[in-house]
Amino acid sequence: MMIEKMLENVRTKCPLIHNITNYVTVNDCANVLIACGASPIMADDKDEVEDITTICAGLNINIGTLNRRSIASMLIAGKRANKLNHPVVLDPVGVGASKLRTDTAMQLLEEIKFAVIRGNISEIKTLVFGSGTTKGVDADMADKITEENLDEIIAFAGVFAKKTGAVIAVTGAIDIVSDGHTTYCIRNGHPMMSSISGTGCQLSAMIAAFIAANPHYALEATVAAVSAMGLAGEIAYERLSETDGNATYRNYIIDAIYNMTPDQLRKGARYKMR
Amino acid sequence: MMIEKMLENVRTKCPLIHNITNYVTVNDCANVLIACGASPIMADDKDEVEDITTICAGLNINIGTLNRRSIASMLIAGKRANKLNHPVVLDPVGVGASKLRTDTAMQLLEEIKFAVIRGNISEIKTLVFGSGTTKGVDADMADKITEENLDEIIAFAGVFAKKTGAVIAVTGAIDIVSDGHTTYCIRNGHPMMSSISGTGCQLSAMIAAFIAANPHYALEATVAAVSAMGLAGEIAYERLSETDGNATYRNYIIDAIYNMTPDQLRKGARYKMR
Amino acid sequence: MMIEKMLENVRTKCPLIHNITNYVTVNDCANVLIACGASPIMADDKDEVEDITTICAGLNINIGTLNRRSIASMLIAGKRANKLNHPVVLDPVGVGASKLRTDTAMQLLEEIKFAVIRGNISEIKTLVFGSGTTKGVDADMADKITEENLDEIIAFAGVFAKKTGAVIAVTGAIDIVSDGHTTYCIRNGHPMMSSISGTGCQLSAMIAAFIAANPHYALEATVAAVSAMGLAGEIAYERLSETDGNATYRNYIIDAIYNMTPDQLRKGARYKMR
Repeated sequence: MMIEKMLENVRTKCPLIHNITNYVTVNDCANVLIACGASPIMADDKDEVEDITTICAGLNINIGTLNRRSIASMLIAGKRANKLNHPVVLDPVGVGASKLRTDTAMQLLEEIKFAVIRGNISEIKTLVFGSGTTKGVDADMADKITEENLDEIIAFAGVFAKKTGAVIAVTGAIDIVSDGHTTYCIRNGHPMMSSISGTGCQLSAMIAAFIAANPHYALEATVAAVSAMGLAGEIAYERLSETDGNATYRNYIIDAIYNMTPDQLRKGARYKMR
Repeated sequence: MMIEKMLENVRTKCPLIHNITNYVTVNDCANVLIACGASPIMADDKDEVEDITTICAGLNINIGTLNRRSIASMLIAGKRANKLNHPVVLDPVGVGASKLRTDTAMQLLEEIKFAVIRGNISEIKTLVFGSGTTKGVDADMADKITEENLDEIIAFAGVFAKKTGAVIAVTGAIDIVSDGHTTYCIRNGHPMMSSISGTGCQLSAMIAAFIAANPHYALEATVAAVSAMGLAGEIAYERLSETDGNATYRNYIIDAIYNMTPDQLRKGARYKMR
Repeated sequence: MMIEKMLENVRTKCPLIHNITNYVTVNDCANVLIACGASPIMADDKDEVEDITTICAGLNINIGTLNRRSIASMLIAGKRANKLNHPVVLDPVGVGASKLRTDTAMQLLEEIKFAVIRGNISEIKTLVFGSGTTKGVDADMADKITEENLDEIIAFAGVFAKKTGAVIAVTGAIDIVSDGHTTYCIRNGHPMMSSISGTGCQLSAMIAAFIAANPHYALEATVAAVSAMGLAGEIAYERLSETDGNATYRNYIIDAIYNMTPDQLRKGARYKMR
């Protein structure tokens, strides 16, 4: 796999990405999309999402801070993107934390074909089993990805990938990306990334850009985006001084994506086929 | 008072805090909650706020950028939190600047029992007297807390605390925290903190985390949170170079909370019982 | 023109600016307003926008992430501001990208008198010709402002200024500010500014502050704000290290506005009457 080519294509093609996302981390999503070479547009009114998604190359649906109004827009935009064969990413933020989030995620899965679904292990479990142990927007402690439960998680990610036809990205201490046939484990990143609100949201936005720029390589493009985000977390961590904390770290991660060269990604990415 | 213990408990218990807050400073609220050791979740749709607040340890209601939809959710979430005995914080951002904000704040005070109410002096005056001199979201000039009017402010904070049963935190050049029986003055902070949009919002979110982690010490936990925020403002100010401005200062304050140790808080907090 | 006086007046008068703006870049708008000496308030509910705009000195309407609810509020607030003779700025973010945005912008132009309209060349073209080549929120490639098409753009900016009675600011590689009689070209700024989501939104907010503080000098105040933003982009760029990217750059630009002295603006501004 030419992982560096995936990033290069984002930078060359500058895909415009339509985001229907939460208002908590939306600014970081916009800036990380620019940092990786894409162009962001945020629009969530039902009267414009069809127009917006039509001029875009990909759609990123994120259910954080969802509401009745934005849910309707997600469905409209998703269906339009499907009709146009634009790739659609689902980030099921906090699914399982409320009936509304779970119901919404299930409805989205039913009515929209996703190219990639990215979540933490608690969120993906909830999607697979219909209910889960999600506590808020972070993965449940009992749900940590470890060497011990890795095989089990790979198995159900594969089953879920086959069922949905989507590439499944389960991100955590170890990241798992599977299309149901091939699975990759990615060992980039730094534990401090979980101290920033929205690294997951940012990654989902980036995945949308990567798969939009590499339309025939959804699996590989997702691996590239996941690796790039993790690598950025490592690079940014190295820059931190003793007095820096999670706010500076947040900026440095986006900075690292901005400065990342394809060559740097090729050398720094630590992914392995299982 | 073991102020350092209050912070320690936030870090140990990692309380999940439900925020119904404005879209201006929401990202800073999320990151400062993580910085102090808590975990944030933002949710404002009436169809999910009961579920969300149920899995949380505390609720933070902030009326900045309020709207008909979010007001309904504030009432629903607040009542549920009351029923579950979860502490609820009110940040009456800009109350007095519009009839809608004043009416909403009054309705919230009537229907929900708050553990802590935090605002600047103009906002708290408006809550007490029903109308005020609030101009926008900043305290009115004539409303500055000084050594001269300190006793007067302490007096009406105490009366308001007794009336509402809430701990009242009036923040400004000098911070006043009162439960109607005991009052503390806190002299941490730096004037440049008012150059950042949302230090007040961040503090209210942190107060929710501190009182959720210290359920029997609402007064002391509030003093701890107020001191921690002020101390972070001092530490962050020391880091500024000549070319740094309010954007960098904003990041450094959150960084300072992230790195603050209980011992550092104990040594740096400047609070005094009146 | 005493460009430095325009900034000085913002710092002396601290105008309160009402913003009805998108949730993507709203925090940066708030902090840049404080940085330049103004005071921000964000409010978008139809039941409070009249009250809020009444206590403010200027109104900034930005149609990014618009929705049915906020559109109604824009109209109500704009009319009230007109009645009170408060200056109103329009930032037609992404107009042309959807029918809703175009229709909304046209309706706003019809029902509200704007003091200044600021957009990139694609957006302004769309306003002038009723439809445009807007692709998302960035200027279309074919729409770059160059030495070659400068005269043509100046011409239609002038026509549009006469038609609307507003000062027109077309921002890009070269910035053009025209009131239909006098036109200025501003050559401050740095190409990397387009790597940040929201420098345009921030500038529009700042323009509102500058014209509110300099009520009889809408043209000059707009030139001052445009120059200040561009100069801040230059100063911030100089501070960047090799590992810094667009996130740090974003902070440094706001920092540069915060630290900008009238004298620095006078010396650094590169504007010329055409």
